[in-house]
Formats: sequence, structure tokens, C-alpha cells
Amino acid sequence: MAGNSYGNIFKLTTFGESHGEAIGGVIDGCPPGLTLDFEAIQKELNRRKPGQSEIVTQRKEADTVEFLSGIFEGKTTGTPIGFFIKNANQKSKDYSHIQDVYRPSHADFTYQNKYGIRDYRGGGRSSARETACRVVAGAIAKQVIKDIQIHAFTSSVGEIFIDKPYQALDFSKTENNIVRCPDESSAEKMISKIKEIRKEGDTIGGTITCVLQNVPIGLGEPVFDKLQAELGKAMLSINAVKGFEYGSGFCGAKMKGSEHNDLFNEDGSTKSNLSGGIQGGISNGMDIYFRVAFKPVATIMQKQETINTKGEIVEMQGKGRHDPCVVLRAVPIVEAMAALVIADFFLLNKLYK
Amino acid sequence: MAGNSYGNIFKLTTFGESHGEAIGGVIDGCPPGLTLDFEAIQKELNRRKPGQSEIVTQRKEADTVEFLSGIFEGKTTGTPIGFFIKNANQKSKDYSHIQDVYRPSHADFTYQNKYGIRDYRGGGRSSARETACRVVAGAIAKQVIKDIQIHAFTSSVGEIFIDKPYQALDFSKTENNIVRCPDESSAEKMISKIKEIRKEGDTIGGTITCVLQNVPIGLGEPVFDKLQAELGKAMLSINAVKGFEYGSGFCGAKMKGSEHNDLFNEDGSTKSNLSGGIQGGISNGMDIYFRVAFKPVATIMQKQETINTKGEIVEMQGKGRHDPCVVLRAVPIVEAMAALVIADFFLLNKLYK
Amino acid sequence: MAGNSYGNIFKLTTFGESHGEAIGGVIDGCPPGLTLDFEAIQKELNRRKPGQSEIVTQRKEADTVEFLSGIFEGKTTGTPIGFFIKNANQKSKDYSHIQDVYRPSHADFTYQNKYGIRDYRGGGRSSARETACRVVAGAIAKQVIKDIQIHAFTSSVGEIFIDKPYQALDFSKTENNIVRCPDESSAEKMISKIKEIRKEGDTIGGTITCVLQNVPIGLGEPVFDKLQAELGKAMLSINAVKGFEYGSGFCGAKMKGSEHNDLFNEDGSTKSNLSGGIQGGISNGMDIYFRVAFKPVATIMQKQETINTKGEIVEMQGKGRHDPCVVLRAVPIVEAMAALVIADFFLLNKLYK
Amino acid sequence: MAGNSYGNIFKLTTFGESHGEAIGGVIDGCPPGLTLDFEAIQKELNRRKPGQSEIVTQRKEADTVEFLSGIFEGKTTGTPIGFFIKNANQKSKDYSHIQDVYRPSHADFTYQNKYGIRDYRGGGRSSARETACRVVAGAIAKQVIKDIQIHAFTSSVGEIFIDKPYQALDFSKTENNIVRCPDESSAEKMISKIKEIRKEGDTIGGTITCVLQNVPIGLGEPVFDKLQAELGKAMLSINAVKGFEYGSGFCGAKMKGSEHNDLFNEDGSTKSNLSGGIQGGISNGMDIYFRVAFKPVATIMQKQETINTKGEIVEMQGKGRHDPCVVLRAVPIVEAMAALVIADFFLLNKLYK
Repeated sequence: MAGNSYGNIFKLTTFGESHGEAIGGVIDGCPPGLTLDFEAIQKELNRRKPGQSEIVTQRKEADTVEFLSGIFEGKTTGTPIGFFIKNANQKSKDYSHIQDVYRPSHADFTYQNKYGIRDYRGGGRSSARETACRVVAGAIAKQVIKDIQIHAFTSSVGEIFIDKPYQALDFSKTENNIVRCPDESSAEKMISKIKEIRKEGDTIGGTITCVLQNVPIGLGEPVFDKLQAELGKAMLSINAVKGFEYGSGFCGAKMKGSEHNDLFNEDGSTKSNLSGGIQGGISNGMDIYFRVAFKPVATIMQKQETINTKGEIVEMQGKGRHDPCVVLRAVPIVEAMAALVIADFFLLNKLYK
Repeated sequence: MAGNSYGNIFKLTTFGESHGEAIGGVIDGCPPGLTLDFEAIQKELNRRKPGQSEIVTQRKEADTVEFLSGIFEGKTTGTPIGFFIKNANQKSKDYSHIQDVYRPSHADFTYQNKYGIRDYRGGGRSSARETACRVVAGAIAKQVIKDIQIHAFTSSVGEIFIDKPYQALDFSKTENNIVRCPDESSAEKMISKIKEIRKEGDTIGGTITCVLQNVPIGLGEPVFDKLQAELGKAMLSINAVKGFEYGSGFCGAKMKGSEHNDLFNEDGSTKSNLSGGIQGGISNGMDIYFRVAFKPVATIMQKQETINTKGEIVEMQGKGRHDPCVVLRAVPIVEAMAALVIADFFLLNKLYK
Repeated sequence: MAGNSYGNIFKLTTFGESHGEAIGGVIDGCPPGLTLDFEAIQKELNRRKPGQSEIVTQRKEADTVEFLSGIFEGKTTGTPIGFFIKNANQKSKDYSHIQDVYRPSHADFTYQNKYGIRDYRGGGRSSARETACRVVAGAIAKQVIKDIQIHAFTSSVGEIFIDKPYQALDFSKTENNIVRCPDESSAEKMISKIKEIRKEGDTIGGTITCVLQNVPIGLGEPVFDKLQAELGKAMLSINAVKGFEYGSGFCGAKMKGSEHNDLFNEDGSTKSNLSGGIQGGISNGMDIYFRVAFKPVATIMQKQETINTKGEIVEMQGKGRHDPCVVLRAVPIVEAMAALVIADFFLLNKLYK
Repeated sequence: MAGNSYGNIFKLTTFGESHGEAIGGVIDGCPPGLTLDFEAIQKELNRRKPGQSEIVTQRKEADTVEFLSGIFEGKTTGTPIGFFIKNANQKSKDYSHIQDVYRPSHADFTYQNKYGIRDYRGGGRSSARETACRVVAGAIAKQVIKDIQIHAFTSSVGEIFIDKPYQALDFSKTENNIVRCPDESSAEKMISKIKEIRKEGDTIGGTITCVLQNVPIGLGEPVFDKLQAELGKAMLSINAVKGFEYGSGFCGAKMKGSEHNDLFNEDGSTKSNLSGGIQGGISNGMDIYFRVAFKPVATIMQKQETINTKGEIVEMQGKGRHDPCVVLRAVPIVEAMAALVIADFFLLNKLYK
């Protein structure tokens, strides 16, 4: 009920605060007999890791995952996989300036009011550090559904958008640049923009597009647990996300039925795909694609007025090492959450066989 | 697992196909001792009902709800509330033309492939008729959280948008017109547009905006069950929804942190509200507002090519009585789902007291 | 959370009070394409029905189940199966004498204290009438796991016990007598005992033994959801049950390991079966057998002192038509709950394939 | 679904194998602001620890719990509490003799068949070592429900039973002897018996009785999640448990209603308590008491025939250091599981306030 678990069949439970001993999790329901590719897991973590390039936070964290259970001689055993990542970089001193202050557009105020107590060291539980655990579980989920391809990429930073449909992109180029945009000319502009924003001590929002290919027909449970509903929830559970759309999305709301309907080919595929690969909450075998909006990071290196825990106006300024734009590091998180959703439905679908 | 339930504490399970005996549901976890306002429940159903105006489907259905349990002398008893709504208008003959045909952008193809069997009478389980049960439960949920106001309204039809912020609108006018738009001049244009579209035998999409006022601080479980994640899932579980955004939404992804941050007043309220009333997944006491995109209805009164169950190309044309634009009837559904989400978190929050 | 659902994959939710409009339920997760045997379902209901013989309550209730959804042309469709049974015999007048009285060893006092309100017409929600819905769902579950045999029978009434191991019994004889005991000489004694008890205006307890045969190896989830744990919970959720034991049960607690261990045959079966077909929480392919203790019915036709809702001592006497011994009517309920447990694990196990 | 979690509101998820890196768990839903008594937690672990006396296994394990999250400045924060216990004593060599052998009445055969793979080092996941995590969580649960007393004790070993009702016992004496029996003369006999059994290289079963005092009225959800049903499930999920009874239990099945009914006092308490503190699945404020049967430990130090993974008959003999009687170490486990059940219902009951 307290919401630290995701999934039904392939279920992840996470724990940990940004500046506690460690973060970690338990994966319950991973199929037995799977030979895990540990390098692939660490590689996903490295994509999310701080300090990976000049346009992300320069915090130093090894982000090395240690597995405690559920794996024997390199294979999953069907028992829960416990894991943790040490918080190597617990500079608690850095955070004394926010002990009695509610930072604007952070979770300080709401946590304090909900729980009556708050771990004020960094974001505590509300920090996006928690998402490293999602990336671990997502990397394993990807191995469970290895025939399905999941490609996320930065599709906009501020006002800079890729001006091509995803079909015109070469996903193998996503990791070629530090902003994770497969369109090279857009990538350059995005990187310049982020550098400029960082110099201003400011931050900027962006969007991530994600494409799922080779998804079997039949995933998703109609009515409340529609495939798009779970994907939406999964994405909106990521820190800083403000919106989700799939297929035609908000543009679809301007269209006519005669334009929007996806006509069938004889083999059951469709000529167009404004449905985004999902009909009636169930995958139809076409590409699933969706777009996720991220707000700008709330911690800025500029002076802002805010209030302290006594309700007095105080001035504060971000310290430390923060991201000017979160989307590039969020690309593997979006993929991880998509993998968790799809793996869960994929395993659940075995019931219908 | 099969996804016909919503909520944890205040939990709705629904059943029923559009052309079966009846649709219905069970509400488990409604607090005891609540004197139910049955008129208010029926009123909500009437807002969703077919035949309510000249711009909706002219199907005739009484949509009268009958309660079977959980209520004694007008009060809830804490035991499950079972209810059903008879399907008065089962014209099964009308649907023989789609028995062997997969309608474009409907769920016929995906249901058949998922289950190996399909109730081809109307949309069966995939029909939006199921949402009448959500409206019943939502109307009761509203009574559980009676201090919280939930206002949904049509904010666009096709390219016609209300060009004012929601704060400039008078929600008491929403029901004054048949398109459920509180802005009168926009409403007129929307109604004209829908009539025009209907004459063409076509359909059109639109958006609904929903505003939640007087929400207590502290609702929502951080991490996976963030308040926005559950709202998003709830909305994306409604038929025809393609997107969800809250607060600054997709626009927020273009902004800078220095523009986007909501600065505090001394009382903990915020000067701006781009956060949309939620920080760190938890309500902060400000208005919660979000926007939901609906695609155009897939059934159009024009000829379309499609395939039959043998994979042959056939021509088909919508028959019967369908909605040219679904948003006006979806307004009470959006409110119902919002009420279910909020009631669930509201009750859950008692656990922290 | 409010506990009116059972199961995960094959999930039953029930509603209804003994003297409300109807009782009913929703089965979510029944596999699609199953041709239902409706006669078999009604037959199970008839085994539980009041008035079936001279040694059960003489209340008149047709107990006819009506299905509202989830079935098309006689087959399950994979969508939820909604059903209800009308309460034909709502003699509310009969119950005015208990409106303000807490009956001894009934749930009147606890419901009133928990909920602050109580449907005092009969047992309301606490009545065993609710179990009719379990029998409906169990009868469908039996059809899902049709290769597995489930045999429950009355193994004792008061001090009268079958003095043979279950292997010496012929289960085909269980329905040959009104007490549902496959051992004829024991059956006669039990029936005499119950008649005698009824004359005294008293009631008597008993036990039911249940044997599951041909259960595939591998059912049950180790750790918290062990097969025996779920069976135990399922049985202890039945009204009037006071104990559960499986395999060697309480006798096993007196034994030595050298006596208790079940040695293997070469094919993996075991020479003895004190384990009761379950090892480590997982079925091992041997017979599963367990025993369930039922207390005597609390409503007796003798005068008893009790208290009213004001805390005053009052005298009361049972009225109406009650069972002198509940076990014979509970036999189909035990089977139904066993079927629900096994069907759930059976379907869940497909996830490992 | 894979069954490694227990509870709804106060939810424990465990992971870990007996001879892996560590065992551990996550507690989700612990109320915030609770000042944890860490000594009390470790004290409970010590009661379960191997090597604590001459009549338990002489394995050496420190069983020191380390907390990773959810606690700040000694208080719970409302976020998940992650913890682990290192497996200090991983003598994997000791277990090579069982790598290819299915031990009688162990879970080797069923795990191998269910998962197709098995961690053969010790019992792996099926080892009772997992219960140390339950003891940690149970010790915290006890602090959540600190006004409720939970007393478990050894009530029988083999044929040696305490011959007094629990009301005649002084629970403060339970920890005075190594067999955890508050009746001194019975304790001596039990200890002698266990020593004798150990010399024979054999093992013996026993029972634990548990009494819950000062339980508020109203805990438990009627119908499927009755208080006794959850207690039964919790107990039957403990390794080696074969039976559960509460209140009058199996004896109640021999009684008449006129003997069994608990008559009320004016204050709502009852003169007798054959109900065992629960009526209609809900606590009534009287003592809750139940009895749990444990089979003899399957690993004996005598030669036994068994089969190997190829289905060949082989001879084996237990090695290493095992318990001759498990009940004394299971006393804190029974208390822990009872605490988890009660804490969950206690927190859930806040919904009705």
C-alpha cells in the first residue's frame, strides 16, 4: 500500500534514501533458469550514473550493484533477487543548509506534512537516486523479454525538438552522443543548449520518446490495467515527469475518426499506426511508441526565496552538483520502466496459453 | 491480475459486456455509516447516459442502477456494495454485420487474438458501456470525500480550445450547455463543430480538463504510487484516451527551472502552481489540475475497408447510433475516476494518523 | 483490503447479506474458452442448500444462480463472470427479536463494534449464506482443474469418528447418505446423533476431511504462500471453522523424524505420505489430505442469557430454522475453497512454463 | 505472486538463501515517527539464533541485522526499511553430499521439479534460515502494537504436554529454561527428552501455544480475511508446521452448542472463551489463543535410503549440526508472525476511525 513495489508477476520492491547506507531492492517473480548477463546490467546503470559526461551532475558514485540472493551459478533460481547499491558519496554536510528549509518544487514540504518527519539529507527517499534500483530490475526484465526491443531517446530539450518521425531515426546512434539523441544535428543543438543553461545556473526540461518493437499481440489487460494505463503509470512514477502520451497522443484529440483510424492489412498489421500499437488496452503487434515530458530540475544555482520549517521567508541557493537537464540520464530509466511493464504483462500472458 | 478492479482501500471491481444481461460491480472498502445520496448517484449516471442530447448517440438506455448489498436503512454498512445496471437495449441483431469483421481501431482484433474468443455483440467488454459502473462507484467516492471538489469539463473539441486558464472559468456553468464547456462562446463553437462532423458521418477528438480543489496535503504514496501516476493510470484506463498531463505538462518540458519553480508563500501555499498541486508524488494543498486527450470515436458512418476473421479485405460501414464526439459524455467518467483515485488515497492516509 | 476477495489469478469477490436483495460475486481471471457445465454448478449449490434433508435447516431457498457476464454461447470469454443468487426467503420479521440483542458466539457484537452499524436481519454479512457464492466459484474452479479430484466428506460428528484411514474409503459413497460420510456404519451413527441433538434443541460440531488426488507436482509458492498456508487460510475463512491440519497434522507433533520421514520410491513418489502431499510448501504429486474442525452452530433452540445493545442481561431463545450440525452442508464449501486454492496455484504455475 | 511478501499495510518482503551472501528483507508501510528499540530487535533474533543452548544446532551464526534505510536519527520515516543479515557461516563444502540427492521430507525434490533448478547448498530458500527476517520484522511490528502482549511458549515436545490451561501459567518464566516452557516440571521432562532424542541421532516434534492479550475489539476483516484465517496462514507458512487451531480448536468439534457458546457479561466480555477471542473473524477483546503443531525435523543423524536426481536409490546420513527439536527456536518465529498479522490488522483498522 505504501507504494514501494511495482508489478504483479515480475515485482520490484525498492528501498533506500539518497544519503543513507545504501539503496536496493528485491525482484520477486523472475523466471528461474535465466542466465543473467551481469555486464548488461552494469552497463544500464552506467548510462544513468552521475559524472558520465560534462553535461550531467559531477557527483561521484560508483553505482555498483551487488546481488545477495536468487542467483546460483549465474542463473536465476525463481527465488527473490535481493540487491543493493552502496551510497559511496554520503556528504551529509553538504545538506545542512536545507535541514530547516523547504526547497521550491521539491518534496521537502509534502514529505514533512505527510509523515511528520523527513530525512533532510539530499532528497532522501524522494531523490531520483532511487531510480538506480529500477534500472537494475529493468535490465533484468529486458533479459526476460529479450526478443522485444526497447529504444528510448531524448526527443527534445527545451524548444529543440527532433523534427523527424521515429521511423526516420537510427536507434543505434542514440548512445553516440552524450545527450542520447539519435538525430545528430538535433543532438548538437541540445548539447549547446544544456551547456548554456548550466552556465546560467539554470536547468531545462525535455522529452523522451520510447519505441517498443516486436511486442507480441495480446499484452495488456483490458479495462483498468490497459497496457497504456500501466505504461502511463510507470512513466508518471518517474521523478520530474509531467505528462505521457502514446500513439497519436494529444494531437489525436484534434483529429477526425476518418483520419485517425488505422486500416488493416490482410495479415492483421495496420497501414497507419496512430493507435500506437495498442487497441482496447491490448498490444496489436505494431510498434508501441510514447512520449514522456520532464520538467526542468528544481535545484538551480541561482538565489531563490523560499520558506523554512517555521514558515519564514528565507533566501537559498542550490549547492553541490546537480543536473542541468535530466532527460539524458532518464533515458535508461524510461527503458527500465517500460521493460518492467512489458515483462509483467508478458509473463502474465502465459496464463492464456 | 485480469485487471477488472481499481483501487486498494476503496476498491471497485466491474463486470459486464455491452450486450449481455447486465453490467455491474462490487465496491469493497466503502466506509460504514455513510448516508448515501442515491439521487446524486443517478444524476451522475444521467450525465453519462446515451440519448441525453442531440449531439450524442441516440441509443435508449435507462441506466438505472440497482443496489443489492452493503446498504442498510440507507446507510453503508462497511460490507461490499454490489450493484448492477440492466442492459435494456440489447439489439443483438444490429451487430451481426461485425461478427466476422475486425473493425479498424477497435478492440475486435486484439480481443480475438488474446482470448481466442470474442463476444462480438457490440464492443462486448471493450465497450465504453463498462464505464457506467465507474460512474456509480465514483459518485459514491465523491460522497466519501465530500469536502473535495472535482470539476471536469470539455476543454477542446478538435481544434477549438478554451483560450483561458481554468481559474478564469465558472465551473457552475459546465452543465449549462450540452457539450459541458463552462466557456459559453467556446461551447457554441464546439457544438456547431460536432453537428457538422456528425453530418459528415465522421467523428472528432477532444480534451477534458479536470480540477481538484480543497485536496488535503499529504495524499499520494511516493515512488511507484505517486498521486500523478495513479491519476494518469486511471485516466489512461478510460476508453479512447491517448494522453495525460498535469500541472505544466508537456509545456513544462520546454521551460527553465527558474521559470518553473513554484515559490512558497509563508503559509506553505505557492505563488504559482506549475507543479499542479503535487510535489514528490504527494498533494501539497494547491489545486490539482490535469488534462486528458481523447481520440475520435473509431466507429464512423462512412465506408471503410477492413479485414474479416479470415484475413480478407472487406468493406464495412458503421451502423446504429454512435457518438460523434465522446468527450462530453466522458466528463462524468473523468470525474468518477478522479474521485476513485482521491478517495483511495484519502482513506489510505488515515493510516498515517 | 476489506477482505471480500479470494485468490490472485482466479479471483473471487463476493457481496451480499443473508436478508438483503441478493448475494453474488465476480470471478475475475477465469481462463477463456471453457465450456461451462451449468448443471454441475447448480448441483454443487444443491449440496449446500437448506432443506435438502431432514437433518438440516428447513428454510426454503431455491439458490438458483444467474450469470450476468463473462460467458458467451456457453463459453467463458476471459472477461469477469458476474453472478447473483436472489434471497427468496427474506423473512425479516423473524429477526426483530435480535435487533437489539447480541447473540452469544455470533458476530453481532464484533460487527457492531467494528463498523458502528449492523444489518441485524439474520447474520447479515456474517451469515454462512455468503458461502453459496464460494460454491458457485468453486464449481467453476473445479472445471478449470478437471483432472484433479477433490473429495471432502464428514469424518466426525461429535465423538463419532470414522475409524479408518481415508485410503480405505470409497468416495463414491459420500453422497449416498444425508450426512455425507462414505463409511456407512459411521454415517448411521452420525445421523442418529444429529437427530438426537436436534430434539434437545441443541447443536453439535464435527470435522470434514478432504483429499485431493492427481495434483501435479509444483503447486504452491514457497515461503509465505505455501500451499498448506493457503489451504489453511481458505478453510479457516469458512464460518465456524476452529482448526486445520494436513498430513500427519497434530499427531505429527508427537512423532520422531525417523518415523515421520517419507522415503522415496525411485519414481519420486513416497512410500509413506505423512507430508500430506506437500513438501516445502509445494505439492509433490502425492495425495493432499487435510482435516477441518467445525464448532457447533451457535444458534440453539434453548434459552440462554445474553446482553442487549445497552449492556443489559436479557434472556433469548433461537427461533426459526437452523442447522443442528453444520458439517454435512459444509462439505461442498470445503471442496469449493480447496478448488479455488488449487485453481489459483494451477494457473499461476503456468507462469513457470 | 511468487509469495515472498506478507501483509498488506505493514508488508514484509524477504529474500535470501541459507548459504548465499545474505538474507534480508524490506518492510514497507511501517508508520513514521516510531523510535525503534534496536536492542529489542536483536534480542528476538538471539532467541531464534543457532548455538544458543546445548539442545539446539551448534552452527555458529552471529545473526546481526544491519538496517540500510527507512530510519533517520533512530526513528522510522515512513519509507521502506531495508535490512540484511550476513550469512557468516557458509560452509558450502558440507553440502556437496546432497548436491545430487533428494533428502526425504525436505523440499529438494519439489523445488527441483517446480523451478528446474535448485540451490543445493543447504536448504537454499527452503531453509528455516529465512525466518530470521520474519523475526526482525516481527520485532518491529511488536513495537507498532506495543500495548498488545504476545506470549508464545513450547506447550509440548513429543508426548510431553503441559497439563494446565494457559491461564495457570506464568509467562514471565518462559525464558527461564532452554526449551521455552513456562511450566518448570514439564520443561525439565522436555529437555531430557530432547537430549535423549539427540543421542539417538533422531528428532522430535512438538507444539507451540500462543496467547495474545489486550487486543482491541474489531481487528480482522470478515469473510475471506478473517483474523483466524490470517493467523492460520501465517503459522502454516512457517517451516515444519502441520496444524493450527484456535480457541476450542479440534476439541470444539466434539462439543455441543449449549456447552460451547460463550455467554456475555454486561460489559461485553464473555464468561468463557471457547471462541478464542474471535467472533465472525473479528477480535472481541478477549484473549486470542492458538496452538501450532510442528513435525519433527527431517534431517536425522541416522542412515536413510533415498533417491538421487537420476532416480536411483542411495543411502544418506545427515551431516553437520541440526536441531533435534525445532519448537524452542520457533517460539520467537510464532510470535513474530502473530505480530505481523496483528500489526497489519491494527493499522488497517484505523480506516474505520
